[in-house]
Amino acid sequence: MNAERASPHPVLAALSGAVGSRVRTDAETLDRHRHDAWVLADLHDFQGRPAPRPLAVVEPATVDEVSQTLRICREHRVALVPMGGGSGVCGGVEPGAAAVVLSTRGLSGLVALDDRDLTARFRAGTMGDEAERLVRERGLTIGHWPQSVALSTVGGWVATRASGQYSTAYGSIEDVLLALEVVLPDGSVLRTRETPRAAAGPDLRQLFLGSEGTLGVVTEVTFSLRPVPEVSQGQALHFSTFADGLEAIRRLVRAGHRPPVVRLYDARESRRHFHEACPRGRHMLLCIHEGTAPMVAAELDAVQRICTDADGAVAEPSVVDHWLRERNRVPSFRSFLEQGVIVDTIEVAATWSRVGAVYDGVTKSLSAVEGILSATAHSSHSYRSGTNLYFSFAARPGDPSKLAATYDECWRRTIEATLAAGGGIAHHHGIGRVRRDYLAREIGESGVALLRSLKRVLDPDDLLNPGNLLPTRRR
Amino acid sequence: MNAERASPHPVLAALSGAVGSRVRTDAETLDRHRHDAWVLADLHDFQGRPAPRPLAVVEPATVDEVSQTLRICREHRVALVPMGGGSGVCGGVEPGAAAVVLSTRGLSGLVALDDRDLTARFRAGTMGDEAERLVRERGLTIGHWPQSVALSTVGGWVATRASGQYSTAYGSIEDVLLALEVVLPDGSVLRTRETPRAAAGPDLRQLFLGSEGTLGVVTEVTFSLRPVPEVSQGQALHFSTFADGLEAIRRLVRAGHRPPVVRLYDARESRRHFHEACPRGRHMLLCIHEGTAPMVAAELDAVQRICTDADGAVAEPSVVDHWLRERNRVPSFRSFLEQGVIVDTIEVAATWSRVGAVYDGVTKSLSAVEGILSATAHSSHSYRSGTNLYFSFAARPGDPSKLAATYDECWRRTIEATLAAGGGIAHHHGIGRVRRDYLAREIGESGVALLRSLKRVLDPDDLLNPGNLLPTRRR
Repeated sequence: MNAERASPHPVLAALSGAVGSRVRTDAETLDRHRHDAWVLADLHDFQGRPAPRPLAVVEPATVDEVSQTLRICREHRVALVPMGGGSGVCGGVEPGAAAVVLSTRGLSGLVALDDRDLTARFRAGTMGDEAERLVRERGLTIGHWPQSVALSTVGGWVATRASGQYSTAYGSIEDVLLALEVVLPDGSVLRTRETPRAAAGPDLRQLFLGSEGTLGVVTEVTFSLRPVPEVSQGQALHFSTFADGLEAIRRLVRAGHRPPVVRLYDARESRRHFHEACPRGRHMLLCIHEGTAPMVAAELDAVQRICTDADGAVAEPSVVDHWLRERNRVPSFRSFLEQGVIVDTIEVAATWSRVGAVYDGVTKSLSAVEGILSATAHSSHSYRSGTNLYFSFAARPGDPSKLAATYDECWRRTIEATLAAGGGIAHHHGIGRVRRDYLAREIGESGVALLRSLKRVLDPDDLLNPGNLLPTRRR
Repeated sequence: MNAERASPHPVLAALSGAVGSRVRTDAETLDRHRHDAWVLADLHDFQGRPAPRPLAVVEPATVDEVSQTLRICREHRVALVPMGGGSGVCGGVEPGAAAVVLSTRGLSGLVALDDRDLTARFRAGTMGDEAERLVRERGLTIGHWPQSVALSTVGGWVATRASGQYSTAYGSIEDVLLALEVVLPDGSVLRTRETPRAAAGPDLRQLFLGSEGTLGVVTEVTFSLRPVPEVSQGQALHFSTFADGLEAIRRLVRAGHRPPVVRLYDARESRRHFHEACPRGRHMLLCIHEGTAPMVAAELDAVQRICTDADGAVAEPSVVDHWLRERNRVPSFRSFLEQGVIVDTIEVAATWSRVGAVYDGVTKSLSAVEGILSATAHSSHSYRSGTNLYFSFAARPGDPSKLAATYDECWRRTIEATLAAGGGIAHHHGIGRVRRDYLAREIGESGVALLRSLKRVLDPDDLLNPGNLLPTRRR
């Protein structure tokens, strides 16, 4: 049967009845909602076997319309895939031809801002940079700066458990989120209280932080803001080994310092990003200190002393300005694919005693991949007990038909080497499709069983973003 | 039938077969496990209608024995109530005659400490003060100081979502907990990874933080530690109104300062605790600053300036030493009951714009209770967006048979006035039995429905601490 002549799926009429023209089935809209920013989806597009268009894209304008959309899809047993800015890089959005996409972009804007309480409530589809702009006008900041800030939504930050570049002082999204509104798979609405802290049973917000569209649709978020700091001042140092740089970070965090930005690049990344400003073979550390002038001055000095005691050499602070200008500029995956090169990033985390072995193990294992061009890393989010590593790899297999296989091999080696060294396999990009079959290695079989139980009780028909997050094996 | 002649419940033989002599049925042990430190249980003891003894107390020594205990109770459909130090004040432990108590006190001690990672893994039944002593020997601190530190277990801290006196800088237990091991109602064991942060689906630790023994038995906890600070220095100020003091705290937190201890007492509590050191009618603020000497000096000065700008007057810092000495000394409920007086504390929380109205509303509403002797409060845990209020009340009804009714009335008025002013009804003591029928007012009907779903899927026969946490109505 010719699909284009097929009668439209009955769910479409029901959705149109509920939300009118906010059901889109034009080719251009459907095309833009076939997948997120996962490189493997780009590869499939490039190779001329693109992911199919979804059945429809619904863009509800109210929470009530979100509820209705969920109820109608459930009634028709049609899968529904929530989508925000589509900037995810793990394949969390790949609806396929039989599913409806629920775009949150119709839910946009600031609902309430309270300067005294330092709170801002946004509708979930508000873009990150727009949300930040709206609070900056009042002298406030969300303090959450994912690289995707201009491509992602505030609801997406919550649904994916995002971290931003200023997380070492300001925390990840779970530390910024004060309250949320979420529509559950049965269409009912959960709103948590805007209160600074509660011991009233398990924290229900946490079920949706990182649920990646599988347990509900986040429709509103309230963030706990900060005033824009009086002073923001950067410094840079470089180290003769990556391990020395990590040791300096460990010591400065242990001493109680929390510069919002603490980024250590290995020698290859240092050269790639900072060129001549970083002597060859040296590993560059950037810090940005924020607060009142005297506190910033004191912290900058104290951190510099800790770093030079750990054999760091002071570099031109202008590299920090360079980073600030360039930090969100990322070449397209497509431009690499056109050169026969597959690239990706993989962020993991480990305690201090393990992170050096994770770095060594992963870079060594990746270097054995056929066609590997580079395997590098930086650390960009630090904690009292450890830090993350953000690996980047590029590979050009001799046979271009092997791009996908090479990609899988790079991922497999990175995950295996991370686990072998005792690290955790997902710091802030999430699970999606790229990590789902490794999930049991991270949270254990009993963790996966528990997640499956949560999924079953909330979404018994497996209609909300099916195929995402949970392992495909043993279903 | 005479209960003492009844044949023992078959579950006891099965438990003895599994854990041997760690099943206790002697009167003294059973008596000590009839209830936690809820004043209403003390009242019932005092009035000669004590809560019944449980069927047995099991004290497993290994996680495997915990699993077996859960499996055996499930098989026999016998309720099981986990119990740590028994210091809870909300009636979270009240097993009744038909349930077995699982005491975690057989699971005690430090399993692993890593100075480099600042991590310590404890078995759940380790007492709080003992855990702190074990890490102090190494120059480290957990930084978690509930008033019950010598009466509560590290597992109990997690199960009840506790906060400590140093939380304004060091966070509550959810900020200290790095990983946990928990036995689920079906006897399976969940261990989360010791990693500083992950985006790997919803954070499974959060299901058990605040579960109050209803979703699993916490058997091990790993905390992220801090070095013992170089300097710890206190200061005190007093204000002419409670609102002025709250405003000073709001400003100092907004400015980015985080003294671990920030406590504002209303005038009556100030006089009660600090006597002549606080001028009559003034509201006392205590701060303790910790860190390196220069950072402490800078923060102390900055905070003092913010407070004097908010009309605070500098007081003798010796009141801080007085507080440090006396802070965990609490008169027994019994001593009050013997004088015909019922007392309790109720901690709530609110954003800055609401907290003043919560204070005024609750104290006013309590003052209308028949026989009320005092209704006072302090703030002791502050956040960017708000703070908690810790109310204390004492009442002597004319008719001593009305102690329980007076108690209920004080609670009802406090909760209603808090909600009317937009506050949250539970900051850190938890829900237990005293708040369970107010839970829907805090998290909404859909929040309660969600919690019931979690309970149903994990514990379908409602055998783990039944009657606790979830509302009794509409069951």
